[in-house]
Amino acid sequence: MKEIIYPVRVEFGHCDPAGIIWYPNFFHWIDSASRYFFEQCGVPTWAETTRTMGVIGTPIVDTKAKFLKTATYGENLGIHTSIPEWREKSFVLRYVVRRVNKDGSVDDIMEAEDVRIFAIKREDGKNGIRAVPIPPSIKVLCE
Amino acid sequence: MKEIIYPVRVEFGHCDPAGIIWYPNFFHWIDSASRYFFEQCGVPTWAETTRTMGVIGTPIVDTKAKFLKTATYGENLGIHTSIPEWREKSFVLRYVVRRVNKDGSVDDIMEAEDVRIFAIKREDGKNGIRAVPIPPSIKVLCE
Amino acid sequence: MKEIIYPVRVEFGHCDPAGIIWYPNFFHWIDSASRYFFEQCGVPTWAETTRTMGVIGTPIVDTKAKFLKTATYGENLGIHTSIPEWREKSFVLRYVVRRVNKDGSVDDIMEAEDVRIFAIKREDGKNGIRAVPIPPSIKVLCE
Amino acid sequence: MKEIIYPVRVEFGHCDPAGIIWYPNFFHWIDSASRYFFEQCGVPTWAETTRTMGVIGTPIVDTKAKFLKTATYGENLGIHTSIPEWREKSFVLRYVVRRVNKDGSVDDIMEAEDVRIFAIKREDGKNGIRAVPIPPSIKVLCE
Repeated sequence: MKEIIYPVRVEFGHCDPAGIIWYPNFFHWIDSASRYFFEQCGVPTWAETTRTMGVIGTPIVDTKAKFLKTATYGENLGIHTSIPEWREKSFVLRYVVRRVNKDGSVDDIMEAEDVRIFAIKREDGKNGIRAVPIPPSIKVLCE
Repeated sequence: MKEIIYPVRVEFGHCDPAGIIWYPNFFHWIDSASRYFFEQCGVPTWAETTRTMGVIGTPIVDTKAKFLKTATYGENLGIHTSIPEWREKSFVLRYVVRRVNKDGSVDDIMEAEDVRIFAIKREDGKNGIRAVPIPPSIKVLCE
Repeated sequence: MKEIIYPVRVEFGHCDPAGIIWYPNFFHWIDSASRYFFEQCGVPTWAETTRTMGVIGTPIVDTKAKFLKTATYGENLGIHTSIPEWREKSFVLRYVVRRVNKDGSVDDIMEAEDVRIFAIKREDGKNGIRAVPIPPSIKVLCE
Repeated sequence: MKEIIYPVRVEFGHCDPAGIIWYPNFFHWIDSASRYFFEQCGVPTWAETTRTMGVIGTPIVDTKAKFLKTATYGENLGIHTSIPEWREKSFVLRYVVRRVNKDGSVDDIMEAEDVRIFAIKREDGKNGIRAVPIPPSIKVLCE
């Protein structure tokens, strides 16, 4: 199973009056990490897959997350990203947000899993999008 | 069970290149809705509870969310917030993000539940915070 | 000269470890206030002006801002918005971010002016947008 | 004059429904670039300068910015940061946001200048902060 690490530098402005990361920022980074995962696996941009197979992206269906330790600015995090499960028309992305401390020890700060789909625009004239079966040409690059 | 509605006006800048709310923004609003809930129930500010009982706030422990429909700018949402479950040292906040359409119909856009604690600073000289039993004087205002 | 007030409730998550509004958030609100100004003056949505006159919105050209006082969460601000100057192909939006204190006194927290254009898509096949002369039908609603 | 480059990867979530960077995000990055500048010049953290000389940071006094070209996700930017002017109790930070294109050409996307102070907490019992003369030990590292 491929794992890609998306690097994050925690900045002053990511932190709240308690001096720690304001938790919605984790979802900012996770959304970027999900796109970065596909990019690093060699999947073309969504602009290109839109042209070639109609796939406009991977909208989120649901998410769950646990906040394990706090982190603050000046720290560097890595978002370890993988796809542990492929279903027929959806898949699970898993993220572990990890901090490497100055003494070399490692802390898991947060972990999350979300379910996403490969989406195309509806062809029936109705507004909106719908899920398509997992494209084999994408799956093979990400396993 | 008390329910408080936190109003949100969806702005252009909340939306992504797909023209819909960029999902981390839901967590921005949910975090605000959680504080607004306590305020509307008559709970003093955390600055005041810090002085009177040491409680510095309600940090998040975990969250789960489902994204049901998309929404876009120009729309008005209400985040329906309640506390469906009280445990010994934590509690569950539930959020339903609802849109009232121009024809009067209602759409559930997103729903989430998070687990939070009432936190005080650790007294043992160690850095960090710890959970305290639910303060009865706060609980009675929120039920 | 019309003045429209866009209301802002300052939330915990808008503030930084110094406990005050993290200044980029002022630009979030100012961008929303600029759209709100047109809406309250009766200008149709950009989606509609795109159809009727090709105008897709009012992109920003430059901005300048002064930060006068700090503000924090739990406070309510009003962004007083007006158009003090119309040029041939651009216009100036002025914003004063004002706080009404509990004793009724008023503080100016921040002020800004930006220059914007009414933009249409380039017709010459090149990517991008270009400014058009100020549409009289919009100007008359905003003066 | 020292110049430090803060790298930015433009993500999907930084862009608006027009498909381009939502301009308040430039100020997010500029604020991070200002801190990064001092760090790369060898200035201790504000936590340390608070202990050694009372300096808690460099709050912003005013800013001005020009938006020159649009940019979008998938692009890499560098924020070229320098201090072109030192005054008695304030200084000017200059930022040029530059994109290196795939053909090696370079585009200036945005430029900004802000005025900042070195701040300490007021000693007169009043709430708030005040500017101190530029600390020579910091200035010498940044020139």
